[in-house]
Amino acid sequence: MLRIITEQADVRSELQRIRDRTQDEQVIHKEATVSEVLQAVKRQGDTAVLHYTSEFDHQILKAEELKVTGSELDAAYQQVSKDLLQSIRLACKKIEAFHRQRVPKSWVQFEDDEVVLGKRYTPVDRAGLYIPGGRACYPSTVLMNAIPAKVAGVPRVVMVTPVKGGKIVNPAVLVAAQEAGVQEIYRIGGAQAIGALAYGTETIPKVNVITGPGNIYVTLAKKLVYGTVGIDSLAGPSEVLVIADETANPVYVAADLLAQAEHDPMAAAILLTTDWSLAKKVQTEVERQLIDHPRRIDTEKAIAHYGLIVVVESLSAAAELSNEFAPEHLELEIADPWGLINQIRHAGAIFLGSSTPEAVGDYLAGPNHTLPTSGAARYASALGVETFLKHSSIIQYSQTALEKVASAIDILATTEGLPSHADSVKLRVEE
Amino acid sequence: MLRIITEQADVRSELQRIRDRTQDEQVIHKEATVSEVLQAVKRQGDTAVLHYTSEFDHQILKAEELKVTGSELDAAYQQVSKDLLQSIRLACKKIEAFHRQRVPKSWVQFEDDEVVLGKRYTPVDRAGLYIPGGRACYPSTVLMNAIPAKVAGVPRVVMVTPVKGGKIVNPAVLVAAQEAGVQEIYRIGGAQAIGALAYGTETIPKVNVITGPGNIYVTLAKKLVYGTVGIDSLAGPSEVLVIADETANPVYVAADLLAQAEHDPMAAAILLTTDWSLAKKVQTEVERQLIDHPRRIDTEKAIAHYGLIVVVESLSAAAELSNEFAPEHLELEIADPWGLINQIRHAGAIFLGSSTPEAVGDYLAGPNHTLPTSGAARYASALGVETFLKHSSIIQYSQTALEKVASAIDILATTEGLPSHADSVKLRVEE
Repeated sequence: MLRIITEQADVRSELQRIRDRTQDEQVIHKEATVSEVLQAVKRQGDTAVLHYTSEFDHQILKAEELKVTGSELDAAYQQVSKDLLQSIRLACKKIEAFHRQRVPKSWVQFEDDEVVLGKRYTPVDRAGLYIPGGRACYPSTVLMNAIPAKVAGVPRVVMVTPVKGGKIVNPAVLVAAQEAGVQEIYRIGGAQAIGALAYGTETIPKVNVITGPGNIYVTLAKKLVYGTVGIDSLAGPSEVLVIADETANPVYVAADLLAQAEHDPMAAAILLTTDWSLAKKVQTEVERQLIDHPRRIDTEKAIAHYGLIVVVESLSAAAELSNEFAPEHLELEIADPWGLINQIRHAGAIFLGSSTPEAVGDYLAGPNHTLPTSGAARYASALGVETFLKHSSIIQYSQTALEKVASAIDILATTEGLPSHADSVKLRVEE
Repeated sequence: MLRIITEQADVRSELQRIRDRTQDEQVIHKEATVSEVLQAVKRQGDTAVLHYTSEFDHQILKAEELKVTGSELDAAYQQVSKDLLQSIRLACKKIEAFHRQRVPKSWVQFEDDEVVLGKRYTPVDRAGLYIPGGRACYPSTVLMNAIPAKVAGVPRVVMVTPVKGGKIVNPAVLVAAQEAGVQEIYRIGGAQAIGALAYGTETIPKVNVITGPGNIYVTLAKKLVYGTVGIDSLAGPSEVLVIADETANPVYVAADLLAQAEHDPMAAAILLTTDWSLAKKVQTEVERQLIDHPRRIDTEKAIAHYGLIVVVESLSAAAELSNEFAPEHLELEIADPWGLINQIRHAGAIFLGSSTPEAVGDYLAGPNHTLPTSGAARYASALGVETFLKHSSIIQYSQTALEKVASAIDILATTEGLPSHADSVKLRVEE
């Protein structure tokens, strides 16, 4: 049963408990395991990858079986329905169009005295995408990671995804990869796959950036290899926060909360509403929609532990509580969503109005569905083209320009106790 | 003595050794210490901060002494020379002007069927700047961290910096902070300062992003708190790579190499040149400039261990070796620097021509001097206004727009085994 509390109760600590739901002490033990896996992959390459794939994923693979073959890639197109292919292509088109908007461009600025300043953007050489696999099948995750990398112009994009019995990668995943322009796919997962991408093995190329969601082992591995490679973020379980007023439809709100809860027993689904009657109706409707739910047990767990309805005094109060939670997904199911948006400071993505369920953004609206979780929206943003780009500052001074700033640099370098810094300018202007 | 090798020798492994010079095994032991410090600060707040400040920095402070007072801030202006104040102000002005260029702006795009998509940029609520201290004094580091935060519009920017005997923060640092708009300064450093900023204590506010360079303990602490807060990067020791042809002046090149080496015994200074005669002259000139160098011992260590001259066949070969090294600072002291820049894929900052020593960029050209080190330029960029901003995706669909994509979402959600995702759309369009 989805609990209802009022703003007077200890709302803040309750929301904080939900936001920080992944900060358990067990992480430390898992980190030791992950660290060991990474060190082994760094030292032994393929041998370690195959060993841990056998130990953790129970898949006995040879090195030459790791890479998905051309014939498997071809065959995947025969195994998906025409409707699914069309839906993947529609999503692909819309996601690409959005990501092509406002891609950072290199620029230079000509200043006085022949000073040239600027930034030059270049893509990383190689990107590695982690796509969860096994029982689950997430073609949308493939699109949301591969398309930004391709739009950024990354010359080599590789994908890893674990397999279960049969060792076959899900055909919808293979089709999505190819539609997004990725052909190089390895059937491995877990911390060993992250290690392989970070350090390289005989078979798996070393990449510069690793993106994509995974379980706690994958996330810890990404944190540990950060610094050797770049990463997108440390993704935790998904979450939605809905702000609704009396105009909201309880059937829609309930469906949106369940669409979050069905992901994972650790998913969070929160409703902040000014309307007590809506709160009651949503509570009832959630129970009703759960009756025949195919993933009822896990979904109910999420609702029971990390589901919450808070009846608030005002929409402003809701906005402030939402800012403290900094949700991954924020739905504004209120009469005037554009009237509240200026009060929202921290949210991964904002869905406005009653015809914009989060699922639209999950699949095909265009903006990336890889978003900051567990309060990270206070400082982080969606994955994007920028994740695969970096820039070099450009600085050119003429002799005249250098002469004008020489004494200021001399004073600053001397203050900092760095004589050769001062000399490097003085020697150039004294001649 | 600065070694000279040719391209035929094992150049790649030598450059890789220098690039990866910080990846030593001792890090693991330090990580355990840092983890313990962070946990203690998280649990005990000020008590732990004061304890470790006494233990590691040998400063006995009370909680109420942590914050730099208004009268100290005022007094600092009396303690710096007029010339230094003017130099700080000149740097401030140029750095701010550069960082105000192309600050990302919020935008929305109106699509067909009343679909609105966009990105809304907002600053973080609080930023924490780490400024190294003790014997060293780095007003330039203050400016390079504080100005981007201020330009981003961060409402509360706090600074931490360790003190030595006398407990007084260096006046140049205090003046730079105030010129950049930072008034809230705490006299702590080390891993305990990073912990205080990440978790908050009775005295130190919890922030959302921590930036700024530090020693290995500070860097490890930043890595461990990443995920609780955002960080700028994991900074290692500084490095320069100079590409020079026969037109380069060996005196300037030598000064630029020493300006890097004087930072730290772990700093790296590399010259790639097509001209054997220049190589020999630079080698001699480095020795000459070292004779009376005030930081001779440390600088010589850096030159001996992580200094190198490589004589290359061509400028293209130099560019490719430079890309593999991915230097923090790249100087192109060649006749036609703009002719080579397109071959440069990875560098933190590029300094073009013989009148642009790195020191210009270190202090006042405008671009940030906080740059990716140890090969991180393969995937990372300079600190910037973006470090203190994040964006929320904006999505609004009309009923008509939702109806058009409903079946595609249904197919994708069903493929992924997420029935409530499908329902959240179907329920809205079936009525």
